[in-house]
Amino acid sequence: MQQEYLLRAERIMQRIQQLAAISEDANGVTRTFGTPAFLEGRALVQSWLEAAGLVTRVDGIGNLRARLESPLAGAKTFVLASHIDTVVNAGKFDGPLGVLMGLDLLENLMARQVELPFHIELIAFSDEEGVRFHTTYLGSKVVAGSFDHALLARTDADGITLAQALETMGAETNQIAVDAIPAADWLGYFEMHIEQGPVLWERQVPVALVTAIAGQQRVELTFRGMAGHAGTVPMDMRQDALCAAAEFVLTAEQFAQVHGRGLVATVGKLAVSRSASNVIPGEVTCSLDLRSPDEQQLAQAHDFLRGHAEASAGHRNVQLEWQPVQQTAPVICDADLNSLLAQAIAERGHETIPLVSGAGHDAVPVSLVAPATMMFIRCYKGISHNPLENVELADLAAAVAVADRFIYQLKAKHEK
Amino acid sequence: MQQEYLLRAERIMQRIQQLAAISEDANGVTRTFGTPAFLEGRALVQSWLEAAGLVTRVDGIGNLRARLESPLAGAKTFVLASHIDTVVNAGKFDGPLGVLMGLDLLENLMARQVELPFHIELIAFSDEEGVRFHTTYLGSKVVAGSFDHALLARTDADGITLAQALETMGAETNQIAVDAIPAADWLGYFEMHIEQGPVLWERQVPVALVTAIAGQQRVELTFRGMAGHAGTVPMDMRQDALCAAAEFVLTAEQFAQVHGRGLVATVGKLAVSRSASNVIPGEVTCSLDLRSPDEQQLAQAHDFLRGHAEASAGHRNVQLEWQPVQQTAPVICDADLNSLLAQAIAERGHETIPLVSGAGHDAVPVSLVAPATMMFIRCYKGISHNPLENVELADLAAAVAVADRFIYQLKAKHEK
Repeated sequence: MQQEYLLRAERIMQRIQQLAAISEDANGVTRTFGTPAFLEGRALVQSWLEAAGLVTRVDGIGNLRARLESPLAGAKTFVLASHIDTVVNAGKFDGPLGVLMGLDLLENLMARQVELPFHIELIAFSDEEGVRFHTTYLGSKVVAGSFDHALLARTDADGITLAQALETMGAETNQIAVDAIPAADWLGYFEMHIEQGPVLWERQVPVALVTAIAGQQRVELTFRGMAGHAGTVPMDMRQDALCAAAEFVLTAEQFAQVHGRGLVATVGKLAVSRSASNVIPGEVTCSLDLRSPDEQQLAQAHDFLRGHAEASAGHRNVQLEWQPVQQTAPVICDADLNSLLAQAIAERGHETIPLVSGAGHDAVPVSLVAPATMMFIRCYKGISHNPLENVELADLAAAVAVADRFIYQLKAKHEK
Repeated sequence: MQQEYLLRAERIMQRIQQLAAISEDANGVTRTFGTPAFLEGRALVQSWLEAAGLVTRVDGIGNLRARLESPLAGAKTFVLASHIDTVVNAGKFDGPLGVLMGLDLLENLMARQVELPFHIELIAFSDEEGVRFHTTYLGSKVVAGSFDHALLARTDADGITLAQALETMGAETNQIAVDAIPAADWLGYFEMHIEQGPVLWERQVPVALVTAIAGQQRVELTFRGMAGHAGTVPMDMRQDALCAAAEFVLTAEQFAQVHGRGLVATVGKLAVSRSASNVIPGEVTCSLDLRSPDEQQLAQAHDFLRGHAEASAGHRNVQLEWQPVQQTAPVICDADLNSLLAQAIAERGHETIPLVSGAGHDAVPVSLVAPATMMFIRCYKGISHNPLENVELADLAAAVAVADRFIYQLKAKHEK
């Protein structure tokens, strides 16, 4: 039994390696949406699907799709998916792992001639990362029926529109509207993905169930004080923009530490204008990235930090500009699917760890039309978007076993 | 009486404006050491000295010098000086003010045919700012006898050595050794300079006496934590280099605020490596600039902040690299000269404000061989090294009156 999952994991790992060898640059893995490397990679995945006996098609946004049809009249569709585009200088697992674990599941069901009370559609989304057109979830938004056609006019760094890029790829953009799975046809959505965080690595557990995908609030801040000579302005006459920003950095950290429940706060960018070691900083810009699975908590954190920053800046005679730049609502994963997933994890003998995904995933747009959840797989030190990204074979085998169990439980549930 | 000082101030101001019109660039004031603009400016000042009836000479480092000789046998030399080089895009007053106020004093003494019990040597130092060869006090070090001849081989940005630059300027570098005023010949040193800080501006007092020139300790710090995804790494698993640096910024500020007595601490530079709004900062470099008139306090501040930074970094699982890059000892101004100066300020009806100079001045090298002090003149909002640098005419007239009184008191003291 264990041996079977290890063999399946090895095959998935071989495919991961083969796909990763296809890249825009010689060192590392880069297959951004629509490039020759992307198309070559998708063709390789397509060849594996067809070799498995699946009929495949490429939809209007470039998603690769294949269905395992149920013999049952009126069966709904359960989607297994992840993405095959990457960031620049990416790892091998972020995206492809979920697609190739999905293929493995289908191969196994077909080999055992299992008849399901629902269709399974396996989808390799064409663009989740949003690197080229600076807009995420292009692939899953088409499938979820929420694609904004105005995006077709958006241009990449070379001035090529999304419509032109799709034409070059041979995609039928006029089909996009009918590529959506109608809301009534969805049974659910399941995505398998590396954690991209360190929790499973530290706790030495191979998989976790995802309870929510955090909402996000991004803010750009500018503190404007008064530049001055580091030697000649007494401490009590300073309007030091960096001290104001430093206070903000620590307040954001402390607020998230104290309030917990999945709230994280990060100041990732901070720049001092016209900085010199002997000049009191006159202007500092920085970013704030707030994430929480709880929409109310996110709003409270935003409002508290804004109020605190304004008061602290005022106290220091420093001006503050607070510019919200992005806001996304949290997604709560489907409780019924998670109940099955938790059961599958427990039955395979693992601790059930509920995790909030701090990163966004294709489950976000899909959750608006269908019950959706995700399973996270342990990755090396939580490192992701980096050539060091890795998954250990034993963890992958354990994840395959859980996924297998999950699908059979879903089958049993819908046969009742 | 008041009218006389106002007229003298007006003439000084006219000369300041005329000298400022000579610049390497069309907008602003730039006369760095040895450039054609520098030489043209120095020639203009020389023409004023000679028109006043003084015999002038240019020494081996390019200083412009003139002496008002005392008839007294064995008289010592009292030096009035400041510098006539500037930083890039400088103001009009930093340096030239002291030279032209000194010329005004000599003109007045000569007009009244005053006989002094000491020689006065007026010196326009050729390089105080150190812009071109990245080493400060070239001019005053020659006069103080502490010039390091190895500096002659130092090159500027164009690969021109200091020796070549001096040759181009027509200076006799083989004279440098004998250009020093022998230690036994010094009576003292007095420099008049804009404050370059906001204290007199805020307190609405035209002049201050300088009790000390702060010592300085400069450090470069690197905090190395672990970069990570802003959404997926829980707060308690982070090694955020920016949070560690922010804690350092605030600790440095608070230490200086609490300990006072002229101590100032500034983090002027701070940079996050490979920063992005959704990445936990993995590496941050920053600067520390500590200044104090008290050498022991400076050492204590340095040691405390280093210890605190190391403890805080350790607590955060962040590595700290602490690299001292520059250290200069404080200079205590001469108590006897300051006593006379305080008396002159009080007699002219002004509040006596003792200030520590946080910026370095030519008095630093001179203080090693002679009693030295300085008088600061109020400048607009404390702004300096900037075209906005300004001195109000009424303040300048008050400063001329104080300087006049100071010289007569010095005369009286040495006639006793």
